[in-house]
Amino acid sequence: MAKTGQIAVVGVGPGYPELLTPQAAAALRAADVVIGYSGYFAWVENLLVDKERIGFPLGQEAERAHEAFCQAGAGRRVVVISSGDPGIYAMAGLVLELLPSVAAGCRPDVTIVPGVSALNAAAALLGAPLGHDFAAVSLSDLLTPWPNIEKKLAAAADADFVLALFNPKSQRRDWQLNRAREIVQRHRRADTPVGIVLNAFRPGQCVMLTTLGEMDVSRVDMFAIVFIGNSASRFVENFMVTPRGYTQPKANGIDP
Amino acid sequence: MAKTGQIAVVGVGPGYPELLTPQAAAALRAADVVIGYSGYFAWVENLLVDKERIGFPLGQEAERAHEAFCQAGAGRRVVVISSGDPGIYAMAGLVLELLPSVAAGCRPDVTIVPGVSALNAAAALLGAPLGHDFAAVSLSDLLTPWPNIEKKLAAAADADFVLALFNPKSQRRDWQLNRAREIVQRHRRADTPVGIVLNAFRPGQCVMLTTLGEMDVSRVDMFAIVFIGNSASRFVENFMVTPRGYTQPKANGIDP
Repeated sequence: MAKTGQIAVVGVGPGYPELLTPQAAAALRAADVVIGYSGYFAWVENLLVDKERIGFPLGQEAERAHEAFCQAGAGRRVVVISSGDPGIYAMAGLVLELLPSVAAGCRPDVTIVPGVSALNAAAALLGAPLGHDFAAVSLSDLLTPWPNIEKKLAAAADADFVLALFNPKSQRRDWQLNRAREIVQRHRRADTPVGIVLNAFRPGQCVMLTTLGEMDVSRVDMFAIVFIGNSASRFVENFMVTPRGYTQPKANGIDP
Repeated sequence: MAKTGQIAVVGVGPGYPELLTPQAAAALRAADVVIGYSGYFAWVENLLVDKERIGFPLGQEAERAHEAFCQAGAGRRVVVISSGDPGIYAMAGLVLELLPSVAAGCRPDVTIVPGVSALNAAAALLGAPLGHDFAAVSLSDLLTPWPNIEKKLAAAADADFVLALFNPKSQRRDWQLNRAREIVQRHRRADTPVGIVLNAFRPGQCVMLTTLGEMDVSRVDMFAIVFIGNSASRFVENFMVTPRGYTQPKANGIDP
């Protein structure tokens, strides 16, 4: 069966070369053309010398996926870059969803190259906020009705998940994070640890420890991720830590 | 203030050199002594030549953390290795929790080096199962009472989170995954896509697509991670995809 071109959807991590995987670097080196939010190109500048780049503004994610298929249709090796991990609030799904739009004999090979996501990178800067079960929730209501988001926040808070809040705020969305805090506070104490990370491993990095009651929403922007602890999370020195279990470790330790 | 030694808790990813970050490799190269589950040493064998290694069996996680502090107390540069990411069901929290047990003037510097976790690696092999809000739940009831785990499963299923199930099964725990399936099925259709990955990016890798109703629990072992889709997840060719939104992408795209 004839295949035309290849598409790799590549996670470049947080934008710090030391956290770009060799697999992602190799995919970029092998590319004929690199597609992505134009702001991400600078993160991997040294790998893009002599590469054709097709940049799009934020918001034009569907357009990037379409362009990837156009380029692959011409037989080229295409990389679509995502910050962090392409599977977590990023480009992998959008690209895969377009596969059926291409005639069966002409579909490009699509591979997903995982990356270090904000869940990994920002959490590492805070300590171990995700040490037990957690829920990732995007506060962006552009594609998901806000009542669905509220339901998720309430369910996760009630069941004592740690919460990792993506897209907590943007220029056009300024009230969602305060509303999320109100919902979680119905289920969790005001002194619950909260960690906020802006620009993890990038210029402008800022790591803040606060509490659910005292969180200053004005310090949060669209590049932030917000972690709200569970009932057992606590501060240890300058770290936020969620213990693995609700009981003390047994003599026979952790399974597996 | 005098500090004694250093501890880096390092995520080595899924065990595939191409997914080991340069930061993790550098930390291993700089180590005087490497502590971890002895089975992980082979994953980074080429970085451990001439290194002292202190291996522990599975189960002795607390012992590894204690040993790290003993070694750091002797002024050494210690690496504690975790598979995947050290912050997700791994060693970061256990190490940080011990900090207060050391006298204030003698505490080692502790850093957490993030890694590519199963959430990233296994998901990439499946496609984009985590394309929307998701909950990570460990089915191990050794440290968490089973009723807490059931509450989390039910809450996440009811609120339409994608589920990522860690530690779905072990030699001693064989019924939890079936019970989890029963709980989720109260809220989700039998044809909900399920992806199971064994040994992601390692010898013995196995990627299985099935459904909630047809999942064969006997195919799952302690090295597996199980993804259960949300109400919008679907199969696209041989991939499992969870769309980013519940609506079609708008002209103005995804935020941010």
